[in-house]
Amino acid sequence: MSTPVRLSAKDVQAMLDASPYIAALGLRVEEADVVAHRLRLHLPASAAHRRAAGTQQVHGGVIAALIDIAGDYAVALALGGPVPTINFRTDYLRPAEDSDLWADAVCRRAGRTVSVADVDVIDADGRTVAIGRGTYASLPRR
Amino acid sequence: MSTPVRLSAKDVQAMLDASPYIAALGLRVEEADVVAHRLRLHLPASAAHRRAAGTQQVHGGVIAALIDIAGDYAVALALGGPVPTINFRTDYLRPAEDSDLWADAVCRRAGRTVSVADVDVIDADGRTVAIGRGTYASLPRR
Amino acid sequence: MSTPVRLSAKDVQAMLDASPYIAALGLRVEEADVVAHRLRLHLPASAAHRRAAGTQQVHGGVIAALIDIAGDYAVALALGGPVPTINFRTDYLRPAEDSDLWADAVCRRAGRTVSVADVDVIDADGRTVAIGRGTYASLPRR
Amino acid sequence: MSTPVRLSAKDVQAMLDASPYIAALGLRVEEADVVAHRLRLHLPASAAHRRAAGTQQVHGGVIAALIDIAGDYAVALALGGPVPTINFRTDYLRPAEDSDLWADAVCRRAGRTVSVADVDVIDADGRTVAIGRGTYASLPRR
Repeated sequence: MSTPVRLSAKDVQAMLDASPYIAALGLRVEEADVVAHRLRLHLPASAAHRRAAGTQQVHGGVIAALIDIAGDYAVALALGGPVPTINFRTDYLRPAEDSDLWADAVCRRAGRTVSVADVDVIDADGRTVAIGRGTYASLPRR
Repeated sequence: MSTPVRLSAKDVQAMLDASPYIAALGLRVEEADVVAHRLRLHLPASAAHRRAAGTQQVHGGVIAALIDIAGDYAVALALGGPVPTINFRTDYLRPAEDSDLWADAVCRRAGRTVSVADVDVIDADGRTVAIGRGTYASLPRR
Repeated sequence: MSTPVRLSAKDVQAMLDASPYIAALGLRVEEADVVAHRLRLHLPASAAHRRAAGTQQVHGGVIAALIDIAGDYAVALALGGPVPTINFRTDYLRPAEDSDLWADAVCRRAGRTVSVADVDVIDADGRTVAIGRGTYASLPRR
Repeated sequence: MSTPVRLSAKDVQAMLDASPYIAALGLRVEEADVVAHRLRLHLPASAAHRRAAGTQQVHGGVIAALIDIAGDYAVALALGGPVPTINFRTDYLRPAEDSDLWADAVCRRAGRTVSVADVDVIDADGRTVAIGRGTYASLPRR
């Protein structure tokens, strides 16, 4: 395997912004550690993400999407670019009461065929609201 | 356990429309079988759901959200109302090339504590693009 | 891709018997459909599989192993031989009260990189006690 | 909720030994931290666990069972006793070449209805061979 491109936070942000779906979520890269393959993304609070009228809680679907994306780009830090998701699991630990959310993702294994990432989703009070684990193809997206 | 409310397709549609996040996705109930606990949802194609500029492919995050929601409301058909998601898994089988998508969900088990639903996501050509499996609390949402 | 070897039930049984771990479980192939990529395995009741003394219930660990194996060999029917498991999920729907168990596995997708199988675990009364879903590498085991 | 019983490593060992299936695996408690809800189990190497003749590799089914059990007893440290598994996911990161294995489990969330545990499976060289995540009912086993 040739040495992968070393991505900066700016590179990852540009990749996120190139996706209409991700751009609409408003995701921002806060940290990208290309050595440890760790990534922190920020999802700003939005009325469009609310689970129900009259609550500030974020819908679980948004959190699942955040996990998928954060895991993908943690793998991208290891491999040099984003890759197709094969599957992922989302566990909700407590309601995400309003607020902005952050996803802390780390690539646990960058293999020849597949890679694995873990993601913790944290609220503004530092509480873990959800955790995710995904498997990604270790091949550049076609 | 008292007999749960028997929900119609119209009831489920009203519940979907009450969620700002789900309403923005534009989900429509096409079938709701309150006896078999089967539900078919339709997700209309949207430029806002695209994975990348220059492609018609739907982003996996949208598909995961669709799975979570469809599974939840299949359980709702069994229990009388939507319930909190505990966790779910999404497996992507092939790219969702443009097009509208449909989610076929069925409640596999409505237990005292938790319930389990399976979801197949189908494209306009009838191909299965993703499959999901979720666990939901068998308790009304607070 | 060259045409995979078409495995018979007898072929699969020989592969199972070649594994010390699987042989110790006593798994038997009851059906193997090489066209539909469906497989039925039988796990005979055993005192060694009991969850606790004084109960006939089968330990969940045995059921998880059964799911992993059944899914693997359903994929083997599609690909011509067993493959490494990448990951799998096990959901327990109700206690497996004593009795023999059967695993009905089907390959949902045989892809170039990875394959996906679903497994239902059934007891002697025809009740589904657990369901599984696994991802396997679409490459021969080294 | 009343204060749960505080289990010692010796208590957990006695619970493991009371299960015919677990006792046959030969699992030993090496550490049990009732405050952090962390548990380390040791699975001794065994010819009966081998994936294939002529290899020292451990079968994935054994590793999945180890993950289920370790996660369950990490939750037991939080709740005072073992609980039913609802579902769990196993990801294999690299082959478990012979050797003894250790499972490091931690309870990530002890909720009113369900609890969640993470498990890393380590070989004698300190390499992570598999990771697991499970959901357990927060209710005593009937």
